[in-house]
Amino acid sequence: MGEYEFWGDHLLGELYGICPEKLNDAELLEKVLIRGIIKSGATICTIQAKKFCPSGVTILIMLAESHVSVHTYPDAQALFFDAFICGRRCKPYCIVETLLVELNPRSHQFQHIVRGNSQIAAAAPERKDFRV
Amino acid sequence: MGEYEFWGDHLLGELYGICPEKLNDAELLEKVLIRGIIKSGATICTIQAKKFCPSGVTILIMLAESHVSVHTYPDAQALFFDAFICGRRCKPYCIVETLLVELNPRSHQFQHIVRGNSQIAAAAPERKDFRV
Repeated sequence: MGEYEFWGDHLLGELYGICPEKLNDAELLEKVLIRGIIKSGATICTIQAKKFCPSGVTILIMLAESHVSVHTYPDAQALFFDAFICGRRCKPYCIVETLLVELNPRSHQFQHIVRGNSQIAAAAPERKDFRV
Repeated sequence: MGEYEFWGDHLLGELYGICPEKLNDAELLEKVLIRGIIKSGATICTIQAKKFCPSGVTILIMLAESHVSVHTYPDAQALFFDAFICGRRCKPYCIVETLLVELNPRSHQFQHIVRGNSQIAAAAPERKDFRV
């Protein structure tokens, strides 16, 4: 990953009002994420998917550009999503758009965080303690 | 995951000024993360780890409570970290503290985002378009 700039877009979202059957369908969720990632231009390295008991699914996808995750809560008809895409080549919003089209949630909220910057790193003061 | 509340802490951080040898050592990074996760009280499900060419490591750890990730940039002597921990039982800051103690970065920055809320879901207006 050394060829990439220390900079990326992190999208965090919550989708509400999705039918529980979709939220328990790991294969469907994986396909939707893969479709969105391909549209974004990012490169998939590996995939972890797990169905929890009694319900819920987590999917973690490692990208050459960082990662994508989904954690579903069928009882709440909701899911958490995040996509962290380093560099400036890919379009992470394509993953969000694909999720919204394919899962058709009743509502959603997203936030976009720009992370990293080598100039900030050079200027950062020395750490004095462990407080975050 | 249905037994958990749709609510969680998401910690996002950048650590700067770490020697490149540590940032290329996937085994070390994995051990440090595992140690922190155990201290936090979270439960590890599966781990993905990859060394990139020519440098850099990504580690993605699936938790029963969501996930932890690290993406390193040895050329920038820096890494990205995130820990998303659902529910109120675990202590995600233990993972951050362990990273800081074991990797001893020159500087760091973190942000803490509280995510999800079933009351917000119930009150959210219907989606009108795909804008995020």
